[in-house]
Amino acid sequence: MRQSELFIKTSHKAPSDEETEGAKLLVRGGFINKEAAGIYSYLPLGLRVLENITAIIREEMNSLGANELLMPVLHPKENWQTTGRWETLDILYKVEGHGGKWFALGPTHEEIIAPIAKKQISSYRDLPAYFYQIQTKFRNEPRAKSGILRGREFLMKDLYSFHTDEKDLEKFYAKALNAYKRIFKRLGIKALLTEASGGTFSKYSHEFQALSDIGEDEIFYCKACGFSQNKEIAKIREGACPKCGKGEIQKSNSIEVGNIFKLGTKYSSPFAVKYKTKSGEELEAVMGCYGIGISRIMGTLAEINRDNRGLLWPEKVAPFKLHLIELKKGLATKAYKSLQDKKDNILYDDRDTTAGEKFADSDLLGIPYRAVISQKTKGKIELKQRNSSKTKLVSINNVKKLL
Amino acid sequence: MRQSELFIKTSHKAPSDEETEGAKLLVRGGFINKEAAGIYSYLPLGLRVLENITAIIREEMNSLGANELLMPVLHPKENWQTTGRWETLDILYKVEGHGGKWFALGPTHEEIIAPIAKKQISSYRDLPAYFYQIQTKFRNEPRAKSGILRGREFLMKDLYSFHTDEKDLEKFYAKALNAYKRIFKRLGIKALLTEASGGTFSKYSHEFQALSDIGEDEIFYCKACGFSQNKEIAKIREGACPKCGKGEIQKSNSIEVGNIFKLGTKYSSPFAVKYKTKSGEELEAVMGCYGIGISRIMGTLAEINRDNRGLLWPEKVAPFKLHLIELKKGLATKAYKSLQDKKDNILYDDRDTTAGEKFADSDLLGIPYRAVISQKTKGKIELKQRNSSKTKLVSINNVKKLL
Repeated sequence: MRQSELFIKTSHKAPSDEETEGAKLLVRGGFINKEAAGIYSYLPLGLRVLENITAIIREEMNSLGANELLMPVLHPKENWQTTGRWETLDILYKVEGHGGKWFALGPTHEEIIAPIAKKQISSYRDLPAYFYQIQTKFRNEPRAKSGILRGREFLMKDLYSFHTDEKDLEKFYAKALNAYKRIFKRLGIKALLTEASGGTFSKYSHEFQALSDIGEDEIFYCKACGFSQNKEIAKIREGACPKCGKGEIQKSNSIEVGNIFKLGTKYSSPFAVKYKTKSGEELEAVMGCYGIGISRIMGTLAEINRDNRGLLWPEKVAPFKLHLIELKKGLATKAYKSLQDKKDNILYDDRDTTAGEKFADSDLLGIPYRAVISQKTKGKIELKQRNSSKTKLVSINNVKKLL
Repeated sequence: MRQSELFIKTSHKAPSDEETEGAKLLVRGGFINKEAAGIYSYLPLGLRVLENITAIIREEMNSLGANELLMPVLHPKENWQTTGRWETLDILYKVEGHGGKWFALGPTHEEIIAPIAKKQISSYRDLPAYFYQIQTKFRNEPRAKSGILRGREFLMKDLYSFHTDEKDLEKFYAKALNAYKRIFKRLGIKALLTEASGGTFSKYSHEFQALSDIGEDEIFYCKACGFSQNKEIAKIREGACPKCGKGEIQKSNSIEVGNIFKLGTKYSSPFAVKYKTKSGEELEAVMGCYGIGISRIMGTLAEINRDNRGLLWPEKVAPFKLHLIELKKGLATKAYKSLQDKKDNILYDDRDTTAGEKFADSDLLGIPYRAVISQKTKGKIELKQRNSSKTKLVSINNVKKLL
């Protein structure tokens, strides 16, 4: 893509209404635009990052055999009354429609998926069943801060599983846990598998926590073996790790980037999601749920991958793989055309501006590779990685191989 | 995909709470699930259709040089007060958040895109600029009916263009109009370009209207040349066509599947979206907006492409291209594995059920090609198009070529 056709500009000034460095860089780079506290637009570069993250998550969900669907934002009040959460969940946005009909803006979708599953499940032969979605969620947070890390409107992947019994849930839970590990590995996020209470949702849960000073969570963990507990439940807060005995328990702030819950029959029971066993007995299905905050992951990546000049996107989520910069108008057009492929991996800075501004913007945007063509490079390309200061002069074919 | 792993079943019974044939078939086929009047979940097959439609639209938007972004659902009240529409737009859902802050659930996004554009546009050099998004929209409709044709929550593509003057707008408007024509052609929808009033939005507009008895719009049109006017503005309601003089003006119900508006400075003015001309003069940008109802298109396709046995999806939007049916357990597994490619184009009915049920389901789902493998086909495949009664015995290589 030509940068002259991006329509969005970077900004030199940090926004005064963002607290964290990552959020400031996302705004300055033109990745996001703040519409209200906790509510953002994803501008073209930001949307590309969001979609790259989504693609990785979608692949792993499909590999679990889960089927994607899309449930609505507006949830009938009755569904939330069935579980009692209409009154108890304090972060619910409530909206009145025609005929005095009330809706919740979905903060999670157990109240919708359970009745859908009820219609589809009648026999043990219909189980297990796994559904997931990529959907915008809403939480009427008392205070929304840290940019897209804790939004009032945010993008999530949520997966729901239905099983004949807890043993089958356990089996899938272990598979989902491994899928989550793969996801965070692919995203370049070190996420500690952390034991936690279920909060509003369930008794037991696992969280994936990324270490970060600006995280709102606190965990006690062992560097040696990875044992980790959320402050909420952590009893061992210092000394030797109770798991490996080798490491020392340490405390850290962290960002919760994913969580998985065994729900049991908490939601299948009120919605009567039942199945007939082989012997004809009628039992309630056992449920699990598995969430990942997609926009929060984008925010987390911005917090943990940056320097004082700007962002450093991991290759797999970067809005573009290569930033092609020309230092004289039109000098890189031929190279751009020759390098371009269907994947649209190149941002071509064809703007009529100074080299200084181009380099500063390139560092700010954090595209993994920078390729400069100037009169000095004499038909070759000066290649540099964003996180390195070394440049080397390479041929266009070398760059092609890189892409 | 194996049908045994789809988790969603078809239903023999038509739902009692749907009026139109298309909506009944979408529910019976397990494409959608009604959550409330005008509010639906898109089940796996339905989501595939929605995504195929979206992919075509996205391609055409990108070909216009428009950049995709994603604006939020929650719009600050202040933005809607700026245009005066907080009070005047009666279909606005309004929701109160913490601190007494009110939001509208976006039914359209002029109130968000204009302030975004204001930040990016300062000089004539920044124009034209084109932004689009694929986003869920909300309308608090007094009565929601006809399934996903007129939803309270629905998926739309909206494009906004910003120009230095009306002449430049005209130029892009004509291009966008042609992109719309291409979109409907690719989707297999005969959409009449129809002159209409702008309603709440602007003085002049063009609608794309698909002829359908169950459409809520009424148009007066000429079969010979395609001249068409919405009832709202149509002065000529019978006799010779005023445009070609050959055809006769006819009346029809129709479904509005797209619309394009010249907005002028209606929104750039209240939000002060201004630019400096070459001579330093400060002028308001001129705007256009261009909408397509993605979920409505899915509903329209279901209405216009069906017979008494089920749906008939056009190839480009069908959830799968081929329905592979085995009439004895495991008989088609080898063929399925050999035909499968990355595009995941095949639904493989590997269920343990009767031939009659499999054929009835296949007709209901409306996948363009049906391939049957039975003991009778002796290593070959019995191929049939959904909209034909002719079958022919072909080799697996023939089927491969088809895909």
